[in-house]
Amino acid sequence: MSSESYQYEYFNVSFPKQYVAHVEINRPDKLNAFIEIMWLNLSKLIRRMSYDPEVRCIILTGAGDRAFTAGLDVQAASQGLLSGNSPDIDVARKANDIRRHILEFQDCITALEKCEKPIITLLHGISYGLALDICLATDIRLSTTSTRLSIKEIDIGLAADIGTLSRLPKAVSNMSWVKTACLTGKVFDSNEALSIGLVSGVYGSKTEGWTAALELAGTIAEKSPVAAVATKELLNWSRDHSVDDGLKYTAVLNAAMVQTRDVKNALLSGLQKRKPTFEKL
Amino acid sequence: MSSESYQYEYFNVSFPKQYVAHVEINRPDKLNAFIEIMWLNLSKLIRRMSYDPEVRCIILTGAGDRAFTAGLDVQAASQGLLSGNSPDIDVARKANDIRRHILEFQDCITALEKCEKPIITLLHGISYGLALDICLATDIRLSTTSTRLSIKEIDIGLAADIGTLSRLPKAVSNMSWVKTACLTGKVFDSNEALSIGLVSGVYGSKTEGWTAALELAGTIAEKSPVAAVATKELLNWSRDHSVDDGLKYTAVLNAAMVQTRDVKNALLSGLQKRKPTFEKL
Amino acid sequence: MSSESYQYEYFNVSFPKQYVAHVEINRPDKLNAFIEIMWLNLSKLIRRMSYDPEVRCIILTGAGDRAFTAGLDVQAASQGLLSGNSPDIDVARKANDIRRHILEFQDCITALEKCEKPIITLLHGISYGLALDICLATDIRLSTTSTRLSIKEIDIGLAADIGTLSRLPKAVSNMSWVKTACLTGKVFDSNEALSIGLVSGVYGSKTEGWTAALELAGTIAEKSPVAAVATKELLNWSRDHSVDDGLKYTAVLNAAMVQTRDVKNALLSGLQKRKPTFEKL
Amino acid sequence: MSSESYQYEYFNVSFPKQYVAHVEINRPDKLNAFIEIMWLNLSKLIRRMSYDPEVRCIILTGAGDRAFTAGLDVQAASQGLLSGNSPDIDVARKANDIRRHILEFQDCITALEKCEKPIITLLHGISYGLALDICLATDIRLSTTSTRLSIKEIDIGLAADIGTLSRLPKAVSNMSWVKTACLTGKVFDSNEALSIGLVSGVYGSKTEGWTAALELAGTIAEKSPVAAVATKELLNWSRDHSVDDGLKYTAVLNAAMVQTRDVKNALLSGLQKRKPTFEKL
Amino acid sequence: MSSESYQYEYFNVSFPKQYVAHVEINRPDKLNAFIEIMWLNLSKLIRRMSYDPEVRCIILTGAGDRAFTAGLDVQAASQGLLSGNSPDIDVARKANDIRRHILEFQDCITALEKCEKPIITLLHGISYGLALDICLATDIRLSTTSTRLSIKEIDIGLAADIGTLSRLPKAVSNMSWVKTACLTGKVFDSNEALSIGLVSGVYGSKTEGWTAALELAGTIAEKSPVAAVATKELLNWSRDHSVDDGLKYTAVLNAAMVQTRDVKNALLSGLQKRKPTFEKL
Amino acid sequence: MSSESYQYEYFNVSFPKQYVAHVEINRPDKLNAFIEIMWLNLSKLIRRMSYDPEVRCIILTGAGDRAFTAGLDVQAASQGLLSGNSPDIDVARKANDIRRHILEFQDCITALEKCEKPIITLLHGISYGLALDICLATDIRLSTTSTRLSIKEIDIGLAADIGTLSRLPKAVSNMSWVKTACLTGKVFDSNEALSIGLVSGVYGSKTEGWTAALELAGTIAEKSPVAAVATKELLNWSRDHSVDDGLKYTAVLNAAMVQTRDVKNALLSGLQKRKPTFEKL
Repeated sequence: MSSESYQYEYFNVSFPKQYVAHVEINRPDKLNAFIEIMWLNLSKLIRRMSYDPEVRCIILTGAGDRAFTAGLDVQAASQGLLSGNSPDIDVARKANDIRRHILEFQDCITALEKCEKPIITLLHGISYGLALDICLATDIRLSTTSTRLSIKEIDIGLAADIGTLSRLPKAVSNMSWVKTACLTGKVFDSNEALSIGLVSGVYGSKTEGWTAALELAGTIAEKSPVAAVATKELLNWSRDHSVDDGLKYTAVLNAAMVQTRDVKNALLSGLQKRKPTFEKL
Repeated sequence: MSSESYQYEYFNVSFPKQYVAHVEINRPDKLNAFIEIMWLNLSKLIRRMSYDPEVRCIILTGAGDRAFTAGLDVQAASQGLLSGNSPDIDVARKANDIRRHILEFQDCITALEKCEKPIITLLHGISYGLALDICLATDIRLSTTSTRLSIKEIDIGLAADIGTLSRLPKAVSNMSWVKTACLTGKVFDSNEALSIGLVSGVYGSKTEGWTAALELAGTIAEKSPVAAVATKELLNWSRDHSVDDGLKYTAVLNAAMVQTRDVKNALLSGLQKRKPTFEKL
Repeated sequence: MSSESYQYEYFNVSFPKQYVAHVEINRPDKLNAFIEIMWLNLSKLIRRMSYDPEVRCIILTGAGDRAFTAGLDVQAASQGLLSGNSPDIDVARKANDIRRHILEFQDCITALEKCEKPIITLLHGISYGLALDICLATDIRLSTTSTRLSIKEIDIGLAADIGTLSRLPKAVSNMSWVKTACLTGKVFDSNEALSIGLVSGVYGSKTEGWTAALELAGTIAEKSPVAAVATKELLNWSRDHSVDDGLKYTAVLNAAMVQTRDVKNALLSGLQKRKPTFEKL
Repeated sequence: MSSESYQYEYFNVSFPKQYVAHVEINRPDKLNAFIEIMWLNLSKLIRRMSYDPEVRCIILTGAGDRAFTAGLDVQAASQGLLSGNSPDIDVARKANDIRRHILEFQDCITALEKCEKPIITLLHGISYGLALDICLATDIRLSTTSTRLSIKEIDIGLAADIGTLSRLPKAVSNMSWVKTACLTGKVFDSNEALSIGLVSGVYGSKTEGWTAALELAGTIAEKSPVAAVATKELLNWSRDHSVDDGLKYTAVLNAAMVQTRDVKNALLSGLQKRKPTFEKL
Repeated sequence: MSSESYQYEYFNVSFPKQYVAHVEINRPDKLNAFIEIMWLNLSKLIRRMSYDPEVRCIILTGAGDRAFTAGLDVQAASQGLLSGNSPDIDVARKANDIRRHILEFQDCITALEKCEKPIITLLHGISYGLALDICLATDIRLSTTSTRLSIKEIDIGLAADIGTLSRLPKAVSNMSWVKTACLTGKVFDSNEALSIGLVSGVYGSKTEGWTAALELAGTIAEKSPVAAVATKELLNWSRDHSVDDGLKYTAVLNAAMVQTRDVKNALLSGLQKRKPTFEKL
Repeated sequence: MSSESYQYEYFNVSFPKQYVAHVEINRPDKLNAFIEIMWLNLSKLIRRMSYDPEVRCIILTGAGDRAFTAGLDVQAASQGLLSGNSPDIDVARKANDIRRHILEFQDCITALEKCEKPIITLLHGISYGLALDICLATDIRLSTTSTRLSIKEIDIGLAADIGTLSRLPKAVSNMSWVKTACLTGKVFDSNEALSIGLVSGVYGSKTEGWTAALELAGTIAEKSPVAAVATKELLNWSRDHSVDDGLKYTAVLNAAMVQTRDVKNALLSGLQKRKPTFEKL
């Protein structure tokens, strides 16, 4: 396995199962709060996994018992861009700097969405602010009974700008709940997250959640990677386009994908009641 | 009633109530699996009903106890487009053939969505693959406790390309669940379908489901057909457009529709506490 | 407080808490049914509150025990635009008149959505027709056990044209339920509204609902108004745009908003464990 | 004629021909430069004309020999929003004020585009800055040999924000020219405007231009107002939508418009070789 | 050649060159004016040519010296849908009928745009109304000095509803000219059409135009049909989508198309200085 | 000046004027044909210039007398992705590889469009294939009498996939010409490019073109960089969005930009008849 080669500060990478990568956010003493190097590294490793033929599904977790992530490391941020106006900096020039910074930060998180391979996030403990931006850019969200979620940005005088406000309304139902959560920064638990459709499974402990995530990742990793990659791409495209544009894009994509040998392989395996194996992608 | 005139192989058509058409997929010995003539016929009959003044609401069901439909008849398909590459066919030319085929197949299913009159699907038993493509192109989805659903395409090495991946994210909540179902092909039951918002009613048996579907269809058929047709059209438009474009399209459509005599008729009937009847459309 | 200055016929305006405005629809003897002056007045007062620095959150309720609103005053309407064709009026010219009227009516209701400050609607009793158009243009929907809702327009021969058909599919999940409700005009209660995601809280009585609404409004009013206004704007934008366009719009908006002193203020208050106060907006 | 009733400071309104309104910007001693009351008044009078059955076409000109308009009155503006930062105003709050101001200003100019009746602008002399925002929101642009145009905003440190940057790329060809003009603020003449497609006619003098504009307005005013209003609406819609959405919107709009008596009237007049007259709209 | 098999009333089909089809509108005694059977037949034959491997480029002309087409046969139409209101027909029901009719008519013309193979229109003589709808749905427009064009619909009290108002603003520059032409119905010649960008070549006679069209069609027919079909598809997609969506759609389409043997074939032929030939599509 | 630091193989970078960067494609012995390292390097250097405060405008040219660029180095490409199918590679997997490659290549060229600072391309000599993709992603296109342009891809059996087919229809008028040029690969000169609106200036020699480009770049570099960057951003946004979305995006962007000191500076300089200087961005 290629885990040694994935050496990025603040992240542990392992391969618990064939074709399944495990990415662990690793700054537990700070509740896995993010500093800039972390989102840069997360983006870099995910971009590599997107093309890595050894990777067919990714599980994203946070190290330690207490938090998936407490979000942005506010202390670090308050010495950076959030440090307030120096009186002699031009407002427009500062705005341009901030815009660059936000767009780059967003790009790092969007790398999770653009990653060809499906990503499962397992939330636990404190999952505030950036935790939402991150998990909403991934494909599948599982959670544990310990999880405490909050769209926390409003409490530091900010509209959440790294993706939550753009992706949340398209990921869950009940816009009344969405507005409430975003405008109050209220803390909510996994059951509320489940009932609102933000997560699709809640488990009794981080260990149980891990077992479930690994099994799910294993199931996905056993499917044709051609079909899995195409399915993720088409669902993401559909979210942002009309049904008509969805159908047209599907037709051009599948015009090539249907020609894969995986179809014949899968059909034959089905008839022979055996599990198919598929070439790398 | 005009049921005799709707003679299409593999489909039974009847009129169980005034203005209510019943379309039954009829290939029960093959679990109502679809071969090409079936989607062509389904499309043809629905296009006719769209304009038929005798039809104000349609119920779509599958014949037999075992399945609404098991989906695409894979055996038939595996001798057709899914039969793999002949070594001497140019990849691009084959891709063009496949694209034509997918677009035509999609058009047949989209005929359900474009049909002016509302369509209720009653799912029961095995409801795999194409069952989802079909019911997602209709307006109302009811189900029974026997129903077993699966977005099955991933298991034959394919991304679902006849509409499910385009319509599902806009028909239900919980994108995490959507990704899970589409990437694993897992079988789920009516309760899960209800909780996720894929169906809006679950009934104890196919008979009970039929009774409910018929009552619902009867209710819709008693409304002004002008209002029902406009309501379906506007909801479908809204799904794919911004609210602002939704409002503008509504205003031009209703500029004519509000001039119908049905409004006066309905208002008067309301005052007189009697049930209004409306002219054909 | 500036409540005296908000004098609009059929509306009571008060300020039950700092920065919280209460707007009460006040025509209880007619079940708060709307005549034209009412939507004009609602629009006017909301447009003013949008810019009023004393207002950070608005609660919208209906006077009396029986109804939030029974919807359009059909008796009044039936003497106006719904009065049917005079035989000598040109159809196209009448259509143009109707289109103008619908667009203006829609604009009045859309003023609730465009209002910079978040609006909480508390539904109770009869909440038919226009009640849905109105509450769907607001941000947060709370309800009481007495509430009876209906998308009633189909029963008077009309597709709902003041916003419900455009906004409902984007506010809730389960399109099968949406189609059913809009095509049948069926009456449903708060529990169904909650399970479908139309409201985010149900309370045992109007009084309890009021207490909850006031507390929620108070919480929002204590947040940075810069962050609250930006959050509402970004969530509304996101509903109608792709994620990519959402991220870009967010970056340009926050390029200015992040420069607010509220961030430093909020961060400092957090460290000092005290509640921050923010300048007016 | 109803010209007396159109009394708005800085604007002269007359009716030089049946159904043709002439709106003249009237601040010639200041080169018709705009102060706030002017765009508010322009918006008000155009909104009224949009519904006025006496108006079927509008001609917009500037008073005096020297300028259509020199644009925003910079001296006035420099004491208002462009006056720079007071050191103690919060950047975000000021940004919110500016955003409100820009949106309102834009709305006033967009009133020209939303006006149901076609508007012809006749440019002459200095036509800088706001002159472009204004004429791009109207339907037909004529010019004279004296005209000097400039997208001037870049020279005062601003991106043009009242519509030019949004509408110009959709009104003319040659994006390379568009970028050059907007990034340099260069002054160009009518021939360049014609060759680039910004205007559709150039005349030797203001008088000649007026004669041509009046004749063109007269031609339009003699057409069925039903057809003219629908044509403007559909062309504006098409600019901002896909062809497919254009066709659908056209079909719902014409579903009512085709029912006008004007069609029979026009056809009959055609057969009888006489000029038809049409009822007011 | 397969020309005999293309037998459709009012159309002559021939194959003047390998892979080049010639479709001639053939009702010269009525100035090639269209009655319903004609647009149905045009649609049918073009849909077949879209898939016909013998067809790589199509030339569309009008028979006779006098007209490409005078447009809709108004006399026929005036006995059909444009025949005015029967007093006892419900306005809404009639509107629904008209909407169906317009959508079907539009679909027939859109078949030209959807045809996989490029279509060249050669205009000559009278080219009014529907002539514009038709040629704007094709790819390349050539003209002759005899051509007289008019967007004629305004003169019969109608907004043009078969495609001109949706496609013209995206096919040419100078929106001021577009509005003028559509609002006045003015007759313009080939030079104006060329200067405005509506046609790309003007020839001294119909014969010269034909020679040029045939040479151009021949050139296109010699290219790889894979590349030609993909190029048409991508240009049509780009017109209606953002550049970003254009790039993404291009990438999925070319992922299959680049695998064609035509590339190797073309490259090799280039090196060998000979003209490549390509397999049928 | 920082020119030394811009060391990228196949590119010369210099600073011929304050704030003006000159990027020269430097592979003249191969007619500046592109190999992979070149588009990677171009992208890298442009991304850096986007943020470099010393750069306010960029001029892009090709070294030598003979070509801006002959496009993709086909010889190199024919040993890479265009090398044809190995018989044992799965079609779908190869398609996925190709899609990755196209998207990355597109991203490199799109870096020109995303660059904050305006870019002027000066075309000369052979300007084929990729020359179009490149110049269409820049802002301003100038040309010389020696230039020969061709959208060449069709001649090697390909639809142009690095941007031309997506950007060309939005950059020029006359879709009939666009289709002709893309379907035939015809060679055209600067006069045709000018008349079609593809370039905005044609100069008698490369030297004259350079002088003009440098003067234009100098003019842009003297403007407020805040205004120039905002103007480019807004024009690019407008191309891909409705006017309404253009206006909204403008308002949020300028809410910060209008607060720049450059406005006061520019206004004051205007009054004092002197040329303003602006802080770096």
